[in-house]
Amino acid sequence: MASVNADRLLGDLYRLREFGAYKSGVHRPTYSDIDMAARRWLADRMTEAGLAAEIDGIGNVLGRASGTGPTLLIGSHLETQPYAGWLDGALGVIYGLETARAIAEAPDLAGCGVDVAAWADEEGHFQSFIGSRSFIGDLADAEIDGLVNQYDGTPLRDALAATGLADLPRREMEAGRHIGFLEAHIEQGDSLEASGQKLGVVTSIVGIWQYRIVAEGVQNHAGTTRMAIRRDAGQALARLAVALDDGFRGIAAERSVWTVGDIALEPGAGSIIPGRGEMLFQFRDADKAQLNRFEAFLRDAVAQADATGPCRLELHTLFRTEPKLMAPAFQDALEAASEVHAPGGHVRMPSGAGHDAQILAQVMPAAMLFIPSIGGISHHWTENTSDVDIVLGARAMATAAANLLRAARNA
Amino acid sequence: MASVNADRLLGDLYRLREFGAYKSGVHRPTYSDIDMAARRWLADRMTEAGLAAEIDGIGNVLGRASGTGPTLLIGSHLETQPYAGWLDGALGVIYGLETARAIAEAPDLAGCGVDVAAWADEEGHFQSFIGSRSFIGDLADAEIDGLVNQYDGTPLRDALAATGLADLPRREMEAGRHIGFLEAHIEQGDSLEASGQKLGVVTSIVGIWQYRIVAEGVQNHAGTTRMAIRRDAGQALARLAVALDDGFRGIAAERSVWTVGDIALEPGAGSIIPGRGEMLFQFRDADKAQLNRFEAFLRDAVAQADATGPCRLELHTLFRTEPKLMAPAFQDALEAASEVHAPGGHVRMPSGAGHDAQILAQVMPAAMLFIPSIGGISHHWTENTSDVDIVLGARAMATAAANLLRAARNA
Repeated sequence: MASVNADRLLGDLYRLREFGAYKSGVHRPTYSDIDMAARRWLADRMTEAGLAAEIDGIGNVLGRASGTGPTLLIGSHLETQPYAGWLDGALGVIYGLETARAIAEAPDLAGCGVDVAAWADEEGHFQSFIGSRSFIGDLADAEIDGLVNQYDGTPLRDALAATGLADLPRREMEAGRHIGFLEAHIEQGDSLEASGQKLGVVTSIVGIWQYRIVAEGVQNHAGTTRMAIRRDAGQALARLAVALDDGFRGIAAERSVWTVGDIALEPGAGSIIPGRGEMLFQFRDADKAQLNRFEAFLRDAVAQADATGPCRLELHTLFRTEPKLMAPAFQDALEAASEVHAPGGHVRMPSGAGHDAQILAQVMPAAMLFIPSIGGISHHWTENTSDVDIVLGARAMATAAANLLRAARNA
Repeated sequence: MASVNADRLLGDLYRLREFGAYKSGVHRPTYSDIDMAARRWLADRMTEAGLAAEIDGIGNVLGRASGTGPTLLIGSHLETQPYAGWLDGALGVIYGLETARAIAEAPDLAGCGVDVAAWADEEGHFQSFIGSRSFIGDLADAEIDGLVNQYDGTPLRDALAATGLADLPRREMEAGRHIGFLEAHIEQGDSLEASGQKLGVVTSIVGIWQYRIVAEGVQNHAGTTRMAIRRDAGQALARLAVALDDGFRGIAAERSVWTVGDIALEPGAGSIIPGRGEMLFQFRDADKAQLNRFEAFLRDAVAQADATGPCRLELHTLFRTEPKLMAPAFQDALEAASEVHAPGGHVRMPSGAGHDAQILAQVMPAAMLFIPSIGGISHHWTENTSDVDIVLGARAMATAAANLLRAARNA
């Protein structure tokens, strides 16, 4: 029996939101002064919880339990999207910390332990998942050399040097130490809220496939160039954006999503026909076959627009992450714990967002628990979840962790 | 008989393109050091041509002929669009200078004269036409107080102070002095080239109506937000851009043009649904009734998209310039002169671009002559016209000026 201390849990979350507070949210970019202060605060809280705490060379904050029995790894991330919410990432880290404390305090789980992790830069100020990838040994020094901050161009190496992290070793996982990884997170959508459910057991993390589409036309005078001879890169992209939206709607699965995140036209003036344009396009699904269907449609649409003219269109793949199934036994444990704390108030669902759990899932059983997001709002400072729901989720997480550890010890 | 000196004409144009040379074009922003150097060079060339030259308080370069007989005003502008062509504006100024010299050298036109003008900021680095508007008495000090550079935000007052222009008086036209205004310009489109014509006699200058369309949606996570509840400002603008293009095509006149010059989405990231977007939309026609038809369609389309949702759409009018007819007698003079120098090689046509002639036309007879643009390219450093066509246009301009002056003297 692992008991969550609601005041301690909420107190830590409230304290953490003060690091980079912005309106009712938080602005805590990776490796910023305020982000580093939050990491140091977390390390201190880990130490107070009896964990051996360390900040490693990529900025991961790792707290190691002292027991010699079965050990779970639980965590998420500390940095935020720009001017974003207070719970995205922070929730999963503090759930890890509170679960570690609850397990340590549970007399019937003596010797079992929870290691806690705050993975660096899940939000991709430099590159998503570099913290968790470093931990599983999937981040080469050469890749670090090439990364820069997407907002201000600062090289990652410079950022690591400025924070002092460059002087520290990167820590990799100890083979065989963990029976698996758990991550809790706000849902970031409105599915739980809309259906009145309190907890979501994640079945899989979607694959995210993202592309840049470049249109090359001819820049010219918007008054003197006849319509018939125009090669307007802006019109080409607008028509493609509509064609993709219409076409994807026809072939989508129930939970598929697709987004034109940006359109940028050059030179972008009222009296000049855009001669060049770029569009960011992304789609997500938990089913690889569906992702392949989308990509085939996308390739056809771009090729057809390119062939028809009057502009040239090119498709550049930016990245394609694989959909990742969560470990069935861990899903079962989270579902059973959810039934204890919210009878009938839980549902299995895919995650439409990427999470560090998809990285850890490559090397150990991994699973995720979602709690509701008010209004489905995410990546915005108005993101929120009620304290009641936060505490409920922590109780389910601690119960699942206790059951998984007990089962491992008894195995 | 007024004889153009081709070497002198081309020599001046070649010299002028050195001020701010960029690749084969020119970068000469209004009131920049290089622009002011060009203005001083022009004033010196005016003086050498026997004109009383002056740079006034708004930066107009004015060269006044000494004769007491009929006087024409001829000119255009000196500054360029950013990294743009060498002839846009410069051509019309040097045609004015060469015509002034040719008229002064014509024994049969003794006493007649040509005043030459280079109007400041036709290209609207601060505001289009402030030079010619100042000259006709249509630019209040209060308007100058409020203008800023569109590229770097420098207040116009600061720019005038930095160049020393603030210490000089602004010169207004002398009532009754000019029998009219002539302006030559590159066509900036491909109509002349495509039809094999050498000279265009401008019938009217189009009205330009420009709008900002704002879409307000809801910014949210591109992975976790179900398609059904999205309010995507980018999709709303893309669909409107396509609807406007299709709709305008159905109601356009032969020479109507319309352009989405820019689309800007916020925040503009791959994994975020755009919550807000802005679109610049502009259309042009020489016929006020056609402009009204376009505007009615635009208002309906925006209102319908706003009513249908899921985003709110707002239409903001940025400006609406009136179409301006060129003086019939001056058109006839330009046409007759064109027939002399390019028999059968000229055509009457509207101007799809705005020009200072539309300002001068408010206070005196005004007309324009176009020469071909290679490939129709304009507002780009690759803009060009063959020397042969440049010289031919100057000859037609000088002949038309001579005939207009002779007719005025004999009236």
